[in-house]
Amino acid sequence: MTAPVYLDYNATTPVAPEVVAAMQSFFERDFGNPSSPHAYGVRAHEALMVARGRVARLIRARPDEVLFTSGATEANNMAIQGIARALPGKRHLITSAIEHPSVLAPIMAMKAQGWNVTVLPVDHYGRVQVAEVMGAIRADTALVSIMHANNETGTLQPIRDIAAVAHASGVLMHTDAAQSAGKIPIDVNVLGVDLLTLAGHKFYAPKGVGALYLAAGRTRPLPITFGAPQETGLRPGTENVPAIVALGMAALLADERIETSPAHLSRLRDRLHRLLTDQIPGLRINGHTDERLPNTLNISFPDIKAEALLAAVASDVAASVGSACHGGDAGGSPTLKAMGSSGERMQGAIRFSVGLYLNEAQIDYAASAIVSAWRQLTGRPVEIR
Amino acid sequence: MTAPVYLDYNATTPVAPEVVAAMQSFFERDFGNPSSPHAYGVRAHEALMVARGRVARLIRARPDEVLFTSGATEANNMAIQGIARALPGKRHLITSAIEHPSVLAPIMAMKAQGWNVTVLPVDHYGRVQVAEVMGAIRADTALVSIMHANNETGTLQPIRDIAAVAHASGVLMHTDAAQSAGKIPIDVNVLGVDLLTLAGHKFYAPKGVGALYLAAGRTRPLPITFGAPQETGLRPGTENVPAIVALGMAALLADERIETSPAHLSRLRDRLHRLLTDQIPGLRINGHTDERLPNTLNISFPDIKAEALLAAVASDVAASVGSACHGGDAGGSPTLKAMGSSGERMQGAIRFSVGLYLNEAQIDYAASAIVSAWRQLTGRPVEIR
Repeated sequence: MTAPVYLDYNATTPVAPEVVAAMQSFFERDFGNPSSPHAYGVRAHEALMVARGRVARLIRARPDEVLFTSGATEANNMAIQGIARALPGKRHLITSAIEHPSVLAPIMAMKAQGWNVTVLPVDHYGRVQVAEVMGAIRADTALVSIMHANNETGTLQPIRDIAAVAHASGVLMHTDAAQSAGKIPIDVNVLGVDLLTLAGHKFYAPKGVGALYLAAGRTRPLPITFGAPQETGLRPGTENVPAIVALGMAALLADERIETSPAHLSRLRDRLHRLLTDQIPGLRINGHTDERLPNTLNISFPDIKAEALLAAVASDVAASVGSACHGGDAGGSPTLKAMGSSGERMQGAIRFSVGLYLNEAQIDYAASAIVSAWRQLTGRPVEIR
Repeated sequence: MTAPVYLDYNATTPVAPEVVAAMQSFFERDFGNPSSPHAYGVRAHEALMVARGRVARLIRARPDEVLFTSGATEANNMAIQGIARALPGKRHLITSAIEHPSVLAPIMAMKAQGWNVTVLPVDHYGRVQVAEVMGAIRADTALVSIMHANNETGTLQPIRDIAAVAHASGVLMHTDAAQSAGKIPIDVNVLGVDLLTLAGHKFYAPKGVGALYLAAGRTRPLPITFGAPQETGLRPGTENVPAIVALGMAALLADERIETSPAHLSRLRDRLHRLLTDQIPGLRINGHTDERLPNTLNISFPDIKAEALLAAVASDVAASVGSACHGGDAGGSPTLKAMGSSGERMQGAIRFSVGLYLNEAQIDYAASAIVSAWRQLTGRPVEIR
C-alpha cells in the first residue's frame, strides 16, 4: 500500500534530507553542551553561531536579533507575555480574530490578568483592515500582534502598513510568520516589525525548534521561563543543538530557493485547483486569491461535508479541515467564521497545502481521487478511471 | 588528533546509537502532525503513546502522568510557576541552596511577585536535613522543591523522607531528577513525590526534550504557556515527535540496564578516583561518598586552581568546574559554597562525571594526563610516561 498523497504541508512538513544529514553529527560526535568551556562545548557553541547567522539571513535580520525557542508556540508566548510584562505601564493588546491559538490564548491569558484586549475583525477575504488597527490603538496599547499569513486560507495580512500605523503611535508590532517563513521572501526591515515568530517544522526543519526575531534596540521582552543564562537570559535551558543546526540548514535551503520556490508551489497548487474546478461545479475558494501564500488552497465543496470527503479519500489523499491545531474542535473553522462564511460553505471547506516534495503526477492522482469521491458521495455518476 | 576523553556526562551525554536510529523514520517518512486526523497524524500520535509508556515505565508512573516538555528547564518552570499559579491561596515556597538555576530562578521570580521563599541550607556533605524542611513548612506553603541528585557533587537528597514530611502538612513535593533519572532506579511511588522532572540529554536522549511527572489526582499545575490543546492543555505546541520517540527509546534502554549500569558506572568512577588518589596526596572528595550518583566524582586538587588544571589537560580530558550552566560564572560553585567549603577547596574542585561509553583504558589515560599536569603545574617532578 502506498502512502496517501500528502497535501497538508501547512500542518507540518517532512524534514529535508539535507537537514536530516546536517544534524546527524551532533547526536553522537559533536554532542557537547554549548555552555561547557572544553572542546566539546566549543564545537557545539560554534554550531549555534553558524545556525543563528543562517536563520537571521532568511529574514534579513542580524544574528544577535535571533533567539532560538522550542517552536512557534513558545516564541508567540514570549512575544506576547514577555512584552506585556516588560511594559507594566501599558494595559492593552490588539490582535485579530483569525490568529493561531498560540497567539490568541496567551492574549486571553493576559486578559484574565486584567489587560484589555481588542480582537479585530477581518473582511470576507480574511484580511485585517489597516484603518481598524488605527482605530483600535489607545494610549495604553503595548502591542499589536497580527499573523503574517493565515494557516487555514494562506491569506496574507498587510503587515507593513499595520506596523507603520502601530509605530506612528509608539506601539510595538509582532507578527506570527510561522506559515510564511520559507514559503515567501521575508525582510523584517521591509515589514518593519519589532518581533517575528518562525516555526522550523513548517519549512522542512524538525519539530521542536523555532525562533523569535527581536529588533535590536527596539524591544526586549521579559523572560517567561527562568534558569541559566542561555539566549542572553531570555530563554533558559541547554540549547537544542541538533535541532538548531537543522533550523539553520533549513533556513539556508529556503533562502537559496526563495526566488523560485513560490512559483513552483503555486504551479502545483493552481494545477490542483484547476483540476478540481474543471470537474466539480460550484467550488468556492476561501481567502484572498492574490494576497495569499503560494502553497495554500482552501476551497468549499458543494453539497457535502468536508469530513466525509476526507474520510472517503483517506487512503489516497491527506489534507485537512482547517488547522491541525483545531483538529478535534467542533463548530467549524474560526477563520472562516470570522470571514462571515455561511454554514454550508464552512462545512464543505478543505485546506489543501502543497510542498516541495510533490510532483504533478501526485497532484493529478489526488485530484482524480477527490473528484471521484465527491461524485460518489453526492450521487453523481462516477466515471471509470 | 583524537578527541579528549569525555568525563562530563553530567553536563550532557551523547545520544545512544539505538536512540539515534529510533528517531530517524520520524523525520522524513512518519513526519505527521499528531493532531492531524489523517494517516500521517495517526502514526505520529501512536508513536507518542508508545514513548509515553516507556518514559512512564522508567519511573514506575502511569502513562497519563507523563507530560512531554522541551527539557528539564521547562519542566521545572511548569512545576514551580504552574503550582504557584494553581494555588493562589498559598504564598510560600521551600527549596534548597544547591538547586539548579532552572529551579532557583523560577522560585526567585515568584518571590519577585510577592511569594515568600525559604532557601534551606545543606550540611558539609551537601545534604538537606529533613528536620529543616519540617521546620520551614508553614500553613501557606504551596510546594517543596528539592533536587534528587546534585549536578555538581552527585549527592542524593533524602527525597522520600522530605516528601513524607511535606505531605504530612498537605504540602506538594517536587523533585528535579534531571541528574538521577537513568543513572539509578527511580520509583515515584517509593519517592512519594507529586511532581518530578526528567531531562532527556542527561541519559542518552537528545537535547530539547524532557518530561514532567504529575501524580494523578494529586496535582495539576496551571499552564505557563498558552495555545492549542496538546498535552491535556498543559503544554501547547506541536509535539516534538522525533525527540519524544528518542526519549522513549532512551528510557527503555535505561530501564533495561538500570540493575547493572550503576555498578558499571561506579567501577569506572572509583577507578579514576583511585588512580588520582594514588598519585596526588591531599585530594579531597566533595559531597557524600555513599549517598551519591554512581557516576559523579567531585574532588578538590591541592595547591592549584581547577581552571588551570583543566586548561593544561584540555587536549586529553574534558571535565568541568562545577556545572555547565554556571560555566561563565565567577565566584565559584554555589553548591560547594553552600556546603561551607573553604576558598582553597572550591578553587581546586573539578567535577568528573563518567558514562556508559567509557572504558577502563580511557579512564587510565585521563588519570595519567591529569596526574602529569598536576605535577607539572605544582612544580613536582614529572615521571616519563
